[in-house]
Amino acid sequence: MAEESDVRPGEVVIELPASFDAGVHFIGRIRTPFKTRDDCPKNTSQSEAVGRVELDPLYAPGLKDLQLYSHAILLYWMDQARRDLVEQVPAHLGRPRGTFALRSPVRPNPIALGVVEIVGIEGGTLTVRNVDCVDGTPLVDIKPYFASTDSFPDARRP
Amino acid sequence: MAEESDVRPGEVVIELPASFDAGVHFIGRIRTPFKTRDDCPKNTSQSEAVGRVELDPLYAPGLKDLQLYSHAILLYWMDQARRDLVEQVPAHLGRPRGTFALRSPVRPNPIALGVVEIVGIEGGTLTVRNVDCVDGTPLVDIKPYFASTDSFPDARRP
Repeated sequence: MAEESDVRPGEVVIELPASFDAGVHFIGRIRTPFKTRDDCPKNTSQSEAVGRVELDPLYAPGLKDLQLYSHAILLYWMDQARRDLVEQVPAHLGRPRGTFALRSPVRPNPIALGVVEIVGIEGGTLTVRNVDCVDGTPLVDIKPYFASTDSFPDARRP
Repeated sequence: MAEESDVRPGEVVIELPASFDAGVHFIGRIRTPFKTRDDCPKNTSQSEAVGRVELDPLYAPGLKDLQLYSHAILLYWMDQARRDLVEQVPAHLGRPRGTFALRSPVRPNPIALGVVEIVGIEGGTLTVRNVDCVDGTPLVDIKPYFASTDSFPDARRP
């Protein structure tokens, strides 16, 4: 849901294209202890919370062998976020930064990415640790985490 | 483009829902040296190739400050991949594995994820190292890489 009202001074609003280029299927929901956005931890590293990734039965066979991995990447859809800001002013920064230099849920395609620890799998339900999103968040994809391609412990940030 | 013909024995085909739940804007294209899928390296860790992420001018302001980071996460749309397999038989494995335990481009939402090293930014063009996709692949998102939330060097895999 776009929240048209809460644009801060210095933020840049664009007019998004009238049509979409591709479509997404929601493949399940993420169940977490967080009922509102204000309840959520800032990110997965600040959360020890356990959540359940409940797949639609149609997609449940896709979990086969995922338990062989210790971690998974979840892609989920931030359906409460507006999509039309290309520069944002995060409260902790106090000045504009580009949307693609932020992990804010507000982005042209509101897909969030969280690395979680796999606790267990039973049927179409994946139990994970380190969830950070609102209860009921739509799931878009699950990927196994590969340290060889995904882990850059020395990556620099400001 | 779905390639209906190339289903291997043991793979599980599903009938996807007739409608989508959300829409995606392609925000740019990834230019790489790889003209076909057969030319592509298996993944980003097997590629030293330099590519250009060309943003649509509408979204170019979103790159502001991204150069403060050493690495970025690209999300891109595998528009040549079929979407209707929940179990697949990778050639290297020879038996079925769930789609969500694979990094195959074939998945209900064909969004690929690649961590790349940032080489430079000029206007709406981001130059990166370690690209692995076909030239012209549609871009869906760019995120700064945070070692604190994204790096798990000890993650286990089979």
